[in-house]
Amino acid sequence: MFTIVGERLNTSRKPVKEAVRQRDAAFVAQEARRQVDAGAHWIEVNAGTFGEDEQEHLFWLMDVVAKAVDAPMAVDSASPATIAQALERSDRTVMVNSISLETNRFEPVLTAVEGKNCHLVALCMNDAGMPRDAEEVVDRAVRLVEGIESTGIPRDRIHVDPLIQPVATDASKGVMAMDSIRGIHQRLPGVNTLCGLSNISFGMPQRKAINRCFLALLLSAGLTGAILDPLDTPLMSMMMTGKMLLAKDPYCMGYVKAAQAGKIV
Amino acid sequence: MFTIVGERLNTSRKPVKEAVRQRDAAFVAQEARRQVDAGAHWIEVNAGTFGEDEQEHLFWLMDVVAKAVDAPMAVDSASPATIAQALERSDRTVMVNSISLETNRFEPVLTAVEGKNCHLVALCMNDAGMPRDAEEVVDRAVRLVEGIESTGIPRDRIHVDPLIQPVATDASKGVMAMDSIRGIHQRLPGVNTLCGLSNISFGMPQRKAINRCFLALLLSAGLTGAILDPLDTPLMSMMMTGKMLLAKDPYCMGYVKAAQAGKIV
Repeated sequence: MFTIVGERLNTSRKPVKEAVRQRDAAFVAQEARRQVDAGAHWIEVNAGTFGEDEQEHLFWLMDVVAKAVDAPMAVDSASPATIAQALERSDRTVMVNSISLETNRFEPVLTAVEGKNCHLVALCMNDAGMPRDAEEVVDRAVRLVEGIESTGIPRDRIHVDPLIQPVATDASKGVMAMDSIRGIHQRLPGVNTLCGLSNISFGMPQRKAINRCFLALLLSAGLTGAILDPLDTPLMSMMMTGKMLLAKDPYCMGYVKAAQAGKIV
Repeated sequence: MFTIVGERLNTSRKPVKEAVRQRDAAFVAQEARRQVDAGAHWIEVNAGTFGEDEQEHLFWLMDVVAKAVDAPMAVDSASPATIAQALERSDRTVMVNSISLETNRFEPVLTAVEGKNCHLVALCMNDAGMPRDAEEVVDRAVRLVEGIESTGIPRDRIHVDPLIQPVATDASKGVMAMDSIRGIHQRLPGVNTLCGLSNISFGMPQRKAINRCFLALLLSAGLTGAILDPLDTPLMSMMMTGKMLLAKDPYCMGYVKAAQAGKIV
């Protein structure tokens, strides 16, 4: 099982921002359904671009998605207060995106999630900024998981995000990500890993080709989930082909079915 | 550096067989040049489908390719006698494809290559047939390399082929190949690995998608070369993207140049 968080309902995408502003529920519902149909296990909602008005728009998004699909949501917000209220409003499991080691986030988010029915995305970020090497990523992951487990959230509900950094700034960042993922699974058996892929290709030409290849490499390092666009057929094709080649698709049945449906390209 | 052996001049391909039969030197020369232009370091020549007449056709092929390009050739023949004569005829380095542990091949090929200016592809095959697991592949690789080194051929001229087997027969064959390649490089530092990719997808739909993804996975396991069609743009694109993400492309310059030339897809 590879966890797919559908990333499309983010107001940083212009058509989504416009639909939210116009309260176009039909558009939002369709985006949610298309992602579930394409294989998303979680639907991410993010209204961060609305700044101070984030909360009202985010909650409207959540209500529309909740009516449109049965899939649970990943609620992406930088505000612990908004996260706390989102958890109060929802009667399903919520994936909270995210907690980190930053002092303005760690304790406030832990307080918000305590006793709630949720999963938690744990970013390997602290007040010093981005991690410099894989060892630092793994150290931060250990501190995050220990802190989160102490509130009673079990490890299998924690999704560690190693934080992908662009190869354009340092050609070793792809290898660092792979080493980080291997290290996290070795040190923290049973934990999930989850990341966005597209930061790896920031500043480079032909970004989608990089993101696709990177997904195969991260799968081989043990990555167990990604935040991605499930309507990106070549990317989903790579995911299914990689799973199959890594013996995570019994009898290759998932691959064969996808090929028959025209989804392997 | 990732070694590319261009596989197109093989008479198992109908247009090549026809061109060889007709002594169409222009066609053969063009196939050789196009592969070199696309990045091939070696040009494979194989006239095995001619059976008893293999040798005359193979030698004609070699003569045409030698005039067309400066690149060295990989001579693929099941006959130690043909390999011996091919080495006599050539004034450049030849990659001999192949030696194995099979009794009708091991000593005869060692005798043929002794004292010659050649590289050697070493198949992990013995009289018992295909290897059953990665450990068996590595054991065979060690015996091959020890035998070949004893004739004075240095390790950096040996290319171990772990023998790729179809996932259609056993879903774990992709992982076995990756484990084999990691094991070979760990046990035999300095040796090269080389394989054909397409056996992995035998019997499956959308074979090219599998072969491409498999190339990325094998690169991450440490593969140092492949016998492939350098005119297959999506496959070459995956190779260059994978190298870049694995930090084997200083400053990502190879990738950026390829993208500018429209070769990243």
